[in-house]
Amino acid sequence: MSFFASRWVERPAHVREVAGLPAGFRAAGVAAGVKPSGAPDVALLVSDAPGTTSAARFTRSGVLAAPVLLCQERCRLDALRAVVANSGNANAATGRRGLDDAAKVQGAGAAAAGVAPEQVAVASTGVIGVPLPAQAVVGGLAAARRLLGETGDASMSEAIRTTDAFAKHASLEVELPGGTVRLAAQAKGAGMISPAFATLLCFIETDAAMSAETADLLLGATCARSFERASVDGQLSTNDTVLLLASGLSGVQVAPETQDELRLGEALDALLRQLALMVLADGEGARRVGRVVVHGGHPLHVEAAARAVADSPLVKTALHGGDPNWGRIAQALGMALPGTAPLPFDVAIEGVKLCSGGGAVPYDQSDLAGKVSRDEVEYVVGLPGEGAETEVFFSDLGHDYITINAEYTS
Amino acid sequence: MSFFASRWVERPAHVREVAGLPAGFRAAGVAAGVKPSGAPDVALLVSDAPGTTSAARFTRSGVLAAPVLLCQERCRLDALRAVVANSGNANAATGRRGLDDAAKVQGAGAAAAGVAPEQVAVASTGVIGVPLPAQAVVGGLAAARRLLGETGDASMSEAIRTTDAFAKHASLEVELPGGTVRLAAQAKGAGMISPAFATLLCFIETDAAMSAETADLLLGATCARSFERASVDGQLSTNDTVLLLASGLSGVQVAPETQDELRLGEALDALLRQLALMVLADGEGARRVGRVVVHGGHPLHVEAAARAVADSPLVKTALHGGDPNWGRIAQALGMALPGTAPLPFDVAIEGVKLCSGGGAVPYDQSDLAGKVSRDEVEYVVGLPGEGAETEVFFSDLGHDYITINAEYTS
Repeated sequence: MSFFASRWVERPAHVREVAGLPAGFRAAGVAAGVKPSGAPDVALLVSDAPGTTSAARFTRSGVLAAPVLLCQERCRLDALRAVVANSGNANAATGRRGLDDAAKVQGAGAAAAGVAPEQVAVASTGVIGVPLPAQAVVGGLAAARRLLGETGDASMSEAIRTTDAFAKHASLEVELPGGTVRLAAQAKGAGMISPAFATLLCFIETDAAMSAETADLLLGATCARSFERASVDGQLSTNDTVLLLASGLSGVQVAPETQDELRLGEALDALLRQLALMVLADGEGARRVGRVVVHGGHPLHVEAAARAVADSPLVKTALHGGDPNWGRIAQALGMALPGTAPLPFDVAIEGVKLCSGGGAVPYDQSDLAGKVSRDEVEYVVGLPGEGAETEVFFSDLGHDYITINAEYTS
Repeated sequence: MSFFASRWVERPAHVREVAGLPAGFRAAGVAAGVKPSGAPDVALLVSDAPGTTSAARFTRSGVLAAPVLLCQERCRLDALRAVVANSGNANAATGRRGLDDAAKVQGAGAAAAGVAPEQVAVASTGVIGVPLPAQAVVGGLAAARRLLGETGDASMSEAIRTTDAFAKHASLEVELPGGTVRLAAQAKGAGMISPAFATLLCFIETDAAMSAETADLLLGATCARSFERASVDGQLSTNDTVLLLASGLSGVQVAPETQDELRLGEALDALLRQLALMVLADGEGARRVGRVVVHGGHPLHVEAAARAVADSPLVKTALHGGDPNWGRIAQALGMALPGTAPLPFDVAIEGVKLCSGGGAVPYDQSDLAGKVSRDEVEYVVGLPGEGAETEVFFSDLGHDYITINAEYTS
């Protein structure tokens, strides 16, 4: 099965799937004892190229995990050479000790990678408010160092899983006008996703050569169209971290405002959109993924309406049940746009018009019932006016979300 | 068991529980065929006192149900004499036809009550986007008229239920300095509750005599401390309607800024707070009710933080599981207060301090585990500064919410 499985993501013609990391990168994932289950929980990614450039995006939460604070305060985010990530513990709301633990992990990562500490990013995911077993992570790094390999992205993807039902990674070969480069990414995320990009960790590597500014521009533009448009439960995380590292070892230079930059951006865009959809499909207990498209005359109204629909537990449970209950779309729109009644809105699900000008219209129930039972369901909402349009992707809300989150335990 | 069952509501000393409606009111509930199940679905409330005063509050949604639009546009909300309510159909997102249907029901209510149409409020609750079977409601009103009685509040409460697991009503005798009055209320609500007051219908009757201005002031102040502080699922409804009717037949005058007004307000406050807590306890599939109290230096921060905690599906599932996972409180605070990191916040659950200055503190896990498994769980959050404090009540999120809402069907 192709990595690009969603109908909402098109594989660009100049992209093909391969295996392993881009030139210059090695990775490994190991079981270090952070998780009581004994599952893999520590990952190490290293770039062997001294001229590696990088870019980063983090959660906007007011409660930042120690590794996020450390990255923001003590890393050269434009020149990262290594990443240490652990699952099983978020090292969030852990105070002064948490920062010390994160620094300890960063130092051990620097030793393992043979680079300066400020070139090592750290990322954690797991339970909040429990001290990080830093010594276990440090021990894991020594083991991971010995296992570093060019196809270590698979084990790295395993080691960053928490409630993820499956690992999420891909490697692509991208044909640019200037030559062929590689692009790979490993992501994790299942719950606590949105409105920014989640208890999501995503590490992206390429052997294209580019300035840190270009890396930052590409990462920002593609995050905005992928992870930032995805909602599992509307809950912003303390730990979201997305990093892009470019080793340059392909020898192909990606200069600003060139066809190379455009083509690489298209590949990165498809890669991150598909990963975001995989995170949603893995949304704790998810059965289906929805896409809501809202158009109208006012950008803020369109955005508020799309978020309200995507975040609504009523819409999400209806999606879970395969129930075309568009009344809940109406409810969400009203909540997003107070004081606008009577609002003449339109609703279509899977191309079937259900509501026009704010009132119900007749439709073929059995036809629609079949359509909303598929893996992907599309909702289109029309608000008055034109010129503005947006989309948000979301998972359904089912029993497994309750089971997972009622029993996650602190 | 006392109606005032929550530890968060104190029964005022001048209030005692009785049965039946205040003087001048009669009510009835009947099965009229709106619900396919054959359960009661149409209610009629009538005041026989020509001088009845009233006040109303409605949802702030931008998608208003037809009965809400009708009440706002074609009722004398300060001089209502009757209320017609139906369950099984919200008459929302039903366009022009919905307004015509609501007007037809209002007309039939006026005939049944023997008053002018503009003195009849209409309210609906149930599925959105399906035309109201107005003829069934009209037929039900003819039957309800024959059954009107002074103890009809019980059957009225039954007839306004949708997914409610139990009926919610109370009748109180209230001793005021000027004499004894009666106060009663019938409410429904289980899902789609918050941030204002829900697919909540609540009808309140008193035989105290007061101006419409006093009724409005009392209703506004007490709604703000009850229904507006309650969240089942953070979803604002299209149909919320709260009405207060005062017949005056006790002969006890409640004048502005008197001890009578203060005492009646205390009784109404306790009544509506307990009803709000009953709505939460009935929150679709709810097992427990939480109360989050947030204090700090900034009213807006305090409010945003309390709402974020109360609306978080992660906090709600932890409450369901009896899991003292305070990391999710931390996550919700960070989401509510972006850009404030590092935020030195405190968290205590049931009086047990878990987090101080943003960092975890040791606590007795088995002691706390017992405390969070009770029917009511209290969370106290401290933000920097002082002078501002608020509370929000919320239900947990469990499997039955999923079952109910995945299979509600349109």
